[in-house]
Amino acid sequence: MSFTRLDKSRKISAPHGTELTTCNWQVEAAKRMLMNNLDDEVAEHPQALVVYGGIGRAARSWECYDKIIETLERLKPNESLLIQSGKPVGVFPTHEDAPRVLIANSNLVPEWATWEHFNELDKKGLMMYGQMTAGSWIYIGSQGIVQGTYETFGSVSRQHFDGDAKGKWVLTGGLGGMGGAQPLAATMAGFCMLAVECDESRIDFRSRTGYVDYKATNLDDALKLINDAMEKGEAISVGLLGNAADVYSELQQRGVTPDVVTDQTSAHDPLHGYLPQGWTLDEYKEQQESDPSGTVTAAKESMAVQVRAMLHFQKEGAAVLDYGNNIRQMAKDVGVDNAFDFPGFVPAYIRPLFCEGIGPFRWVALSGDPEDIYKTDQKVKELIPDNEHLHNWLDMAKERISFQGLPSRICWIGLKDRARIARAFNDMVKSGELKAPVVIGRDHLDSGSVASPNRETEAMQDGSDAVSDWPLLNALLNTAGGATWVSLHHGGGVGMGYSQHAGVVIVADGTEEADKRLSRVLWNDPGTGVMRHADAGYDIAKNCAREQGLDLPMLDTK
Amino acid sequence: MSFTRLDKSRKISAPHGTELTTCNWQVEAAKRMLMNNLDDEVAEHPQALVVYGGIGRAARSWECYDKIIETLERLKPNESLLIQSGKPVGVFPTHEDAPRVLIANSNLVPEWATWEHFNELDKKGLMMYGQMTAGSWIYIGSQGIVQGTYETFGSVSRQHFDGDAKGKWVLTGGLGGMGGAQPLAATMAGFCMLAVECDESRIDFRSRTGYVDYKATNLDDALKLINDAMEKGEAISVGLLGNAADVYSELQQRGVTPDVVTDQTSAHDPLHGYLPQGWTLDEYKEQQESDPSGTVTAAKESMAVQVRAMLHFQKEGAAVLDYGNNIRQMAKDVGVDNAFDFPGFVPAYIRPLFCEGIGPFRWVALSGDPEDIYKTDQKVKELIPDNEHLHNWLDMAKERISFQGLPSRICWIGLKDRARIARAFNDMVKSGELKAPVVIGRDHLDSGSVASPNRETEAMQDGSDAVSDWPLLNALLNTAGGATWVSLHHGGGVGMGYSQHAGVVIVADGTEEADKRLSRVLWNDPGTGVMRHADAGYDIAKNCAREQGLDLPMLDTK
Ligand SMILES: NC(=O)c1ccc[n+]([C@@H]2O[C@H](COP(=O)([O-])OP(=O)(O)OC[C@H]3O[C@@H](n4cnc5c(N)ncnc54)[C@H](O)[C@@H]3O)[C@@H](O)[C@H]2O)c1
Ligand SMILES: NC(=O)c1ccc[n+]([C@@H]2O[C@H](COP(=O)([O-])OP(=O)(O)OC[C@H]3O[C@@H](n4cnc5c(N)ncnc54)[C@H](O)[C@@H]3O)[C@@H](O)[C@H]2O)c1
Repeated sequence: MSFTRLDKSRKISAPHGTELTTCNWQVEAAKRMLMNNLDDEVAEHPQALVVYGGIGRAARSWECYDKIIETLERLKPNESLLIQSGKPVGVFPTHEDAPRVLIANSNLVPEWATWEHFNELDKKGLMMYGQMTAGSWIYIGSQGIVQGTYETFGSVSRQHFDGDAKGKWVLTGGLGGMGGAQPLAATMAGFCMLAVECDESRIDFRSRTGYVDYKATNLDDALKLINDAMEKGEAISVGLLGNAADVYSELQQRGVTPDVVTDQTSAHDPLHGYLPQGWTLDEYKEQQESDPSGTVTAAKESMAVQVRAMLHFQKEGAAVLDYGNNIRQMAKDVGVDNAFDFPGFVPAYIRPLFCEGIGPFRWVALSGDPEDIYKTDQKVKELIPDNEHLHNWLDMAKERISFQGLPSRICWIGLKDRARIARAFNDMVKSGELKAPVVIGRDHLDSGSVASPNRETEAMQDGSDAVSDWPLLNALLNTAGGATWVSLHHGGGVGMGYSQHAGVVIVADGTEEADKRLSRVLWNDPGTGVMRHADAGYDIAKNCAREQGLDLPMLDTK
Repeated sequence: MSFTRLDKSRKISAPHGTELTTCNWQVEAAKRMLMNNLDDEVAEHPQALVVYGGIGRAARSWECYDKIIETLERLKPNESLLIQSGKPVGVFPTHEDAPRVLIANSNLVPEWATWEHFNELDKKGLMMYGQMTAGSWIYIGSQGIVQGTYETFGSVSRQHFDGDAKGKWVLTGGLGGMGGAQPLAATMAGFCMLAVECDESRIDFRSRTGYVDYKATNLDDALKLINDAMEKGEAISVGLLGNAADVYSELQQRGVTPDVVTDQTSAHDPLHGYLPQGWTLDEYKEQQESDPSGTVTAAKESMAVQVRAMLHFQKEGAAVLDYGNNIRQMAKDVGVDNAFDFPGFVPAYIRPLFCEGIGPFRWVALSGDPEDIYKTDQKVKELIPDNEHLHNWLDMAKERISFQGLPSRICWIGLKDRARIARAFNDMVKSGELKAPVVIGRDHLDSGSVASPNRETEAMQDGSDAVSDWPLLNALLNTAGGATWVSLHHGGGVGMGYSQHAGVVIVADGTEEADKRLSRVLWNDPGTGVMRHADAGYDIAKNCAREQGLDLPMLDTK
């Protein structure tokens, strides 16, 4: 079998409009979303089939991609296509209420679940890394990360400032691929932000795309910009050129305490991701080659300086959080014993949302027409009239986020709203208000769909962080409920060995049948999240389950 | 929540007969099979909820068991019950073609997938070990292991002796829980067998239950019994009291070479499972306590003696196989570098069957009436008229295997037969020929349902031993196809970290709908096995796929 990973002649973009190229809208949706994942505007390295997140791919090889498309084009409405790590391996008879595509990516028997073994298989052409939404065909570009960060800051604001971030500021580090979303998300949530970045080109890039408002080259200027804005009650962001370790400890020495402190340098990778204090970027690059272990130590020592300042800010009353970059572990490695005194972002800020099944609900207009998204934005506001935070997001997103590939939207809603909103979209398709069907999905980073003890399930109340029965049940239930495609992945976000998670996508094509499926699947999917958190003992989840009438047989048993 | 694991007052047995205690036969079947797994005649320690295989349980606690039963009794025909490691955690709306129960047992994120972490969670009441058919409610007692062993010896016979084992003999060790099935299975397959066992009580127990024909206390007597039988063309078995290491090397010295050699002492556990040469059983027990590491070394040294003899027999032309007890590894640990020169039983003898989707198909008469099973035996013979090996099994099983709990049968059949046989059973239910519906299931040790690099997927042709996408796809597809219950487990057979596998059970209740579901599920389920082996490059599987018209998009692509 030929095996082509890089094909520079490829330029994929999904069909728009209402003409079907497959047997029905369910199969059409799978085809268009696979293609959309590999759109130039969406994917990071589309010609290498890489969508995002390191080597997160949508298909194993170009031969596999072609065969998937070909197979979808001949698939019947009562058949299901099986995808094994990005390869189309079988077509089997099922029925019209079953998923049209079933996907398993990157799964390894635990004892062999390492990058070394994965890479060996990957090189042989036997595997593919699916990340989360790359291999499950529902990545929508950077909107997802902006919104996730907005939710985190929104949650910080609600927990510490009664939901009013006016006059408060956030200190962070890093304006890279993901971290660059921070200033936009922070200002959307009402905060001012000071983001320290050591690579000027990154600050300039974020200014150009409107993600950061101002650039500063010294701390005084940066603080003045922030203070002036706060006095006026404005939310602005400043990118400060500097080393985060220097700036954090300088602030500590000056006795300046931010309201919120986090960091999104690539601390998880001390060899390539964190500039040691006193080094230039060029020196860092040279030393990576000539003295890797000395470089790692230098980076970790600087991280220790930064983390010590963060611990100090926490003592002074700031809300301090690890944003999933493992900086606590790195500092601990070189002697900061109390590094884990400040919490990870999920247990501290996201888990309360997960307890109500609130997570990254998203949808895409298969018509390709932005108007379809604007109409659904409006519908969401109508149906959830009293959520200011959500309305604010939708308005800001419309204004400041440009669509990539097929127009899409993301917003965080929970058990009580997902099915309701989805059915309203289905009605809009039925009535012709929308030009074509809509696909509805989510990230795998969601309430009931992931086991990842270093991130999403860190520090669960009952100690069940590593139990992965939950995402497996989530995938089985979504298959049983009639989702359009369902996926089971391993190693997304935190890498091989560290997570198992499930994806789901379902089509609203305006039919009665879709209405029934949406009612089931988009109740069940967040429902498994509320269930998982209620089972772990969280009161918010138990209350949500009772209020929403979720059927949990052992809830309230003695 | 109270948490009771041991309740000496419990005595479970499944309802028999045609009266429903739940909304329909699908749910009734789940209830009866859970109860049947915990029947005194079926389970090893029913009052501790332990079914078989160490601590393989059917429910997490008695509180969970009671709640599962209670929930099944109120479950509606369009709802699904979720079981997480033996606990009923949720009831969700699905539809009538969806499974009624979805199960995930013992799954852990790989980095935490160890016995240590599992035991910690188990102690806290957060988990349960499901083994394979214990937690997925389709264990049927020792018939399963007799049949598996019969298939292995049958395959040995076909590969080496043209399917005629007359005048051939097998040398083995161990007549314990599993190993005790060897003499019965060997004689059923036409072989004579000499089984060396160091614990006389085990030989006596196997004689009493008719599993072994003769007992001998010295090698000369044993060989004479065997030789006489072979001359007469008879298949008999002899349990020889002795140490396998002694007897194997004594045979080597005498220049006697058996036709087939294997071993089923508990070599995998050198501290408790293998008696060192020259020791009494009592000495072994004492030394386990007083000098564990010296005991392990002594056991391994004796295993090395046994394995060297096995390698010698192989050189002399015997068919030698490791029967899944890890004796090769143990011998290698103490210097037998070429221990892996003889193969494991799966790659050598079972894999060719797996390539055609042939595996441990089983069914249970919900009526409780043995006549229902005898009628299905007859039906299988009618529909597969030309398979002597199978007819032989069915006749022998009827004669020599006593039912445990609900009457049941197992026989190994493949892609071309499973759906056909199941639909015929469904017709028999419909016509009233059978008194009540039948449930159809299988072991997780099957063609498409397991990834277990030290056993079922050892030495795959393409090196994909550890890829667990396959069993996950199997479970998703069986859910999509409309099985009655589906399960995903971790750690069965070989323990935590070493396997992932899926179970499926489906009810033949005589309806049209069941006919459709059976057609799909019992085609798809073995189909995934043929697919997995074809993808790995096995010609038998590729040919089977072509002959049976399995739709594998990338088969025959260049
Ligand atoms: N919270 C989440 O959900 C989540 C999700 C994915 C990734 N992450 C983590 O967030 C981190 C950032 O991800 P990314 O995609 O933005 O990475 P990136 O490598 O693209 O960006 C890191 C940025 O930090 C800058 N930097 C490095 N050292 C610095 C220092 N000493 N001072 C100031 N700036 C410095 C770099 O110049 C770079 O611009 C990673 O560790 C990643 O694993 C978090
Ligand atoms: N092939 C398969 O599918 C499969 C499945 C499950 C288990 N196994 C393996 O088979 C092995 C046996 O399983 P079991 O349930 O029968 O175990 P068991 O512990 O019940 O029986 C082992 C028997 O071996 C005897 N024995 C120990 N040392 C001996 C010696 N030196 N000489 C002679 N006899 C000796 C013991 O007295 C005991 O009766 C285990 O290693 C198990 O893991 C294989």
